[in-house]
Amino acid sequence: MHPIDPQALSALTALLGQHLNAASEVRRAHAADASYHAPQPPQAVAFPSSVEEIAQIARICTAHQVPIVPFGTGTAVEGGIVAVRGGLCVNLSRMNRILRVSAADMDATVEAGVTRQQLNEHLRAQSTGLHFPVDPGADASLGGMAATRASGSAAVGYGTMRDNVLGLKAVFADGTVVEVGGRARKSSAGYDLTALLVGTEGTLALITEVTLRLAKLPAAISAAVCPFADLDTAVAAAIDVLSEGIPVARLELLDEVQMQACNQYAGLDYEVAPTLFFEFHGSEKGVVEQAETAGAAVARRGGGPFRWATAEGERDRLWQARYDAYYASRALRPGSVGYVTDVCVPITALARCIHQTRAALADLDFPAPLFGHVGDGNFHVVCLIEPGNAEELAQVRQLGEQIVEWALQAGGTCTGEHGIGLGKIDALEAECGRGVEVMRRIKRALDPDNLMNPGKVLNGL
Amino acid sequence: MHPIDPQALSALTALLGQHLNAASEVRRAHAADASYHAPQPPQAVAFPSSVEEIAQIARICTAHQVPIVPFGTGTAVEGGIVAVRGGLCVNLSRMNRILRVSAADMDATVEAGVTRQQLNEHLRAQSTGLHFPVDPGADASLGGMAATRASGSAAVGYGTMRDNVLGLKAVFADGTVVEVGGRARKSSAGYDLTALLVGTEGTLALITEVTLRLAKLPAAISAAVCPFADLDTAVAAAIDVLSEGIPVARLELLDEVQMQACNQYAGLDYEVAPTLFFEFHGSEKGVVEQAETAGAAVARRGGGPFRWATAEGERDRLWQARYDAYYASRALRPGSVGYVTDVCVPITALARCIHQTRAALADLDFPAPLFGHVGDGNFHVVCLIEPGNAEELAQVRQLGEQIVEWALQAGGTCTGEHGIGLGKIDALEAECGRGVEVMRRIKRALDPDNLMNPGKVLNGL
Repeated sequence: MHPIDPQALSALTALLGQHLNAASEVRRAHAADASYHAPQPPQAVAFPSSVEEIAQIARICTAHQVPIVPFGTGTAVEGGIVAVRGGLCVNLSRMNRILRVSAADMDATVEAGVTRQQLNEHLRAQSTGLHFPVDPGADASLGGMAATRASGSAAVGYGTMRDNVLGLKAVFADGTVVEVGGRARKSSAGYDLTALLVGTEGTLALITEVTLRLAKLPAAISAAVCPFADLDTAVAAAIDVLSEGIPVARLELLDEVQMQACNQYAGLDYEVAPTLFFEFHGSEKGVVEQAETAGAAVARRGGGPFRWATAEGERDRLWQARYDAYYASRALRPGSVGYVTDVCVPITALARCIHQTRAALADLDFPAPLFGHVGDGNFHVVCLIEPGNAEELAQVRQLGEQIVEWALQAGGTCTGEHGIGLGKIDALEAECGRGVEVMRRIKRALDPDNLMNPGKVLNGL
Repeated sequence: MHPIDPQALSALTALLGQHLNAASEVRRAHAADASYHAPQPPQAVAFPSSVEEIAQIARICTAHQVPIVPFGTGTAVEGGIVAVRGGLCVNLSRMNRILRVSAADMDATVEAGVTRQQLNEHLRAQSTGLHFPVDPGADASLGGMAATRASGSAAVGYGTMRDNVLGLKAVFADGTVVEVGGRARKSSAGYDLTALLVGTEGTLALITEVTLRLAKLPAAISAAVCPFADLDTAVAAAIDVLSEGIPVARLELLDEVQMQACNQYAGLDYEVAPTLFFEFHGSEKGVVEQAETAGAAVARRGGGPFRWATAEGERDRLWQARYDAYYASRALRPGSVGYVTDVCVPITALARCIHQTRAALADLDFPAPLFGHVGDGNFHVVCLIEPGNAEELAQVRQLGEQIVEWALQAGGTCTGEHGIGLGKIDALEAECGRGVEVMRRIKRALDPDNLMNPGKVLNGL
């Protein structure tokens, strides 16, 4: 790995002053995300505060052939921000201004470093009656969520970042600033560059602003929880509820390993059984009707007791296990790191794919709870491995590849919401075949020197 | 315009036999769409019946540098299928097989020439309880709808082709067949090539198959119609209804010129006033609640009488004027062709933009009714001009440019759903600025010889 050219460093220092930092502790803090991927620090970290500064950074980096690695909150899990070829990490945390909210149009424009909770708190403080519903769990930056096409538990009701990003501002390697998309609710104006850039993980351009669709805060919310004798029945009941046309806002599955972990973690006494968690958003009457219709559907599958609640405190207690799921998993093996699988399949293939997966989990020597956004056909296994344990890593890698193979056989995808990063590059080839060559041609056309987050998403460049 | 190389013609004839046709009446039938754009025939028309044949066609055309112009049903209005550089028109009407429907997954895969009504009739005949909701009015081919990113009156409730195409099969100029996207409900697997290809109007690749998201047929439908004293109030009432969070399936505005045209056309006796048309989809109770809530909202704006109905025949009668709108417009000036504007703006800018537009319409010497998908901020003026009348064409072109300018000033787009084709190439430059250069780079990377529907969407190639 070449060090950054001293001329580039002095140009960056002249531009950014104290907001360029090459101290080893700062570099280390930007070397890894929340996953098992081995840390690799960038050679320096920039903390720009404007799109103009980022455009300047890009021009300097291109002139001196320095890789550019964007950094939001570092909460992703496929190694997208690991600086595999060194270079300059661009931390967007100072790009944290909410630039515009139009309550009547139900949209907002924010800088890329604004986090989803920051935006939601702002929307609440301004009494807009709106929220930004995409919820990946972590309080991620909205630019990072756009870059990874994130989603989470509310996607079944509200869609993913693909559906909720109306427009972007982005900086290309040569310093060109391009605004794509806009505030119209729909458009047929040429190539959909917004959709193209969402999910490219910084490999084509660095996202500096996002214009987002907001949603009306529901007048009422009801929540429901229902245990089942086995996973197949739980999944079948979930399909029934979706087939009824009930507009569920969230529909989550936790397996019995996960439920036990949650009971242990938070002193709960849920039945240790595969469990569905529902959330319904709508009018006062509407959410009661939805919960009743869903209750009848799960009862026909023998699920139950079906418990539901509309009052806020009661709802939260009911959903506590789901909220705790990730931390409860981690607590099963203190000091572990998570290798998290992320396949998404057509919903009729979900029971089979989960079956195959659970059979394979039985061979592991460490805990691996399973939970999923079953409304979308997306599920995760959190394999809790020891950092640096090569044997465990090899074991879960093989398992991960096997699960991807099953998902692809079922017409699914290797990643429902976590992205490709470093961890799924081969899986992308298996999934997309010749499509990957189309991606490579686009990459070469828009980033000819391969400076934008190199080594991620695509190989063979 | 060069004639097609005789060697290319003989290779195509060897491949397609009688399904290659260069008769002048067949060429003429593929020279124009449903709009004012001057007809220009292709030099021959191919009627392939498989993706393999299309891949062969592409290889022959690339070898002999013959432009390839895809043709669905010819019902679009921006000249997308006009053969401005001659070449081979590829008519997809024989690619009309419904390949797969999975009712439980609520998805289907069809060949590109299948029309939306054909698919919906199939879904009804198979008692799937599902429909494909995107409804641009015309019985367009689903491949063509994907290629133009079509939408229509149900977009406010169900989204556009952007939202409802899960995956595609497409043939590139070099004959490479690529499958993109898939059947998973969400994916973060690399660049979103599905979203990139949707809306590219055949300029990157020729779409041969589409995998579509289907929707549950609603248990109940209610419809409502409400006249207003003026357009501003009608638009304000529409915004109120959306702000209430009422999940309208359709929300349409017709101005008084359009209402008068509908009365004349079908012998109706609607009040000649700006009118909102609503359609609500949901449960039996839900649609009643939606209609009542919407009724209360429009009453607060002084609209009315608000008439609504849930029984099918009554609903259809209520909505008759909306169904008739396009044909009623055409009947205002028999023998005319339509120059149709198509801007889409943030909804708070809609009243102003419609105001500006209507003031300009007062100067025209021919009828120009206005109607729109007001729930999305998208509206159309149908300027009924005489075919071949250069003065009228110049007048409406100027008007169209002016409306686009107002829309862009308001943060909107030059085309909500009709696409760029030939008619909006300059408008795309005005709207997207440097983004168009990004599109051009992608075009050059994926269609280096500029053979895929050349002369459309992008200039400067």
